[in-house]
Amino acid sequence: MSNFGFSELRLVNPYQVAFLEARSAVKAHAVLEQAREYATVAEAVDDCALVVGTTDIGPRVLEHPLRRLEFGGKLIAKKLAAAPPAQVALLFGSEKFGLSNEDMSHCHWLMRIPTREEHGSMNLGQAVALCLYEIIRSPAAAKSAPDGKRLAAAVHLERITELLETILDRSGYVHPRVEGSTRMKIRRLVRRLQLNAHDAEVWLGMLRQILWKLEHRDEHGQD
Amino acid sequence: MSNFGFSELRLVNPYQVAFLEARSAVKAHAVLEQAREYATVAEAVDDCALVVGTTDIGPRVLEHPLRRLEFGGKLIAKKLAAAPPAQVALLFGSEKFGLSNEDMSHCHWLMRIPTREEHGSMNLGQAVALCLYEIIRSPAAAKSAPDGKRLAAAVHLERITELLETILDRSGYVHPRVEGSTRMKIRRLVRRLQLNAHDAEVWLGMLRQILWKLEHRDEHGQD
Repeated sequence: MSNFGFSELRLVNPYQVAFLEARSAVKAHAVLEQAREYATVAEAVDDCALVVGTTDIGPRVLEHPLRRLEFGGKLIAKKLAAAPPAQVALLFGSEKFGLSNEDMSHCHWLMRIPTREEHGSMNLGQAVALCLYEIIRSPAAAKSAPDGKRLAAAVHLERITELLETILDRSGYVHPRVEGSTRMKIRRLVRRLQLNAHDAEVWLGMLRQILWKLEHRDEHGQD
Repeated sequence: MSNFGFSELRLVNPYQVAFLEARSAVKAHAVLEQAREYATVAEAVDDCALVVGTTDIGPRVLEHPLRRLEFGGKLIAKKLAAAPPAQVALLFGSEKFGLSNEDMSHCHWLMRIPTREEHGSMNLGQAVALCLYEIIRSPAAAKSAPDGKRLAAAVHLERITELLETILDRSGYVHPRVEGSTRMKIRRLVRRLQLNAHDAEVWLGMLRQILWKLEHRDEHGQD
């Protein structure tokens, strides 16, 4: 991170042994001193307009758009070069297990380092270095394209997810049998919308109104 | 090395502690078992047609052509893709001191990873990963197009628009004063979602259910 000028490290449930060892990295002390711990992924990314997960695509079937690092890195570079720059989170899982489905459900899309099929999983530090390198790799490319509107922050997308889930629940859409995974499905569905900040406000307003109506009717019906 | 399909590790005066630790890397055992030790750099590279050194350009004045990794990696990839492929050596120094002038004198040219000036020196494993990634990066990249799911047909977007409008109308969201333009606003809002065909089906199912619930409640309320 320090090599490539990235300063904001956020940790969720870190492996303390490795983290304390890392603190001995001489020139990276600024990054490590500023590192902050969060209780959940949702809290860690809540001000981020774009959340990109990393994966070596194991046996799981992915429900997310998956981009090779070359293409994904360029997209992220564009977001960072926009005016104003977007707050982007790169999400890495543990070296052993990678990101869980729950972790991934917070992501807009996923990125894959083009490793060999026979040896896909990488050392975490190397994977981070590769992703950050790809992002700063070609500064000219990033500057070229003007980007659209400011993307919605994760905290608003999560609010939309919750509202939509509640509305669907009241509407009888959620089958009890699959309830466990519904929140994640909705979360992914909402992330794929790539909402900009303004549209997110509009959707929030709509959903609040629909929910209000459903609840109002409920009360009425019970009279 | 194993991640990116490089198999031939040659060591000169290795730091034995680190090397023995590395032998525990599960999937890379093939690389480590085949690793050979040499007494001098000259012997280690003696069958190589191209020897490229790596450096973070410290205070030394370099006597070699110096290429940024992006460009150097491409040149190396070309040599490897030639028929017959050239035998290329990538030479890395120790993490602490880098390559000596004597080491560098065996090199045809040098390559530099574009780190920040304030923090140039890198972890050795990360530096190796970056260089190998850059070498395999382009040719493979050309072959794989970024994923693009089939976008939803306009007819489905229009159905989503209509359903959403009806739902919002029943929820009291639409102010009579602005009603004329609401349909268009919703239509644009829905188009901006860039839904793929599958997600469009999911949204249609959700909206139908919400509408059914709203209408069902209406009837119930009128009883």
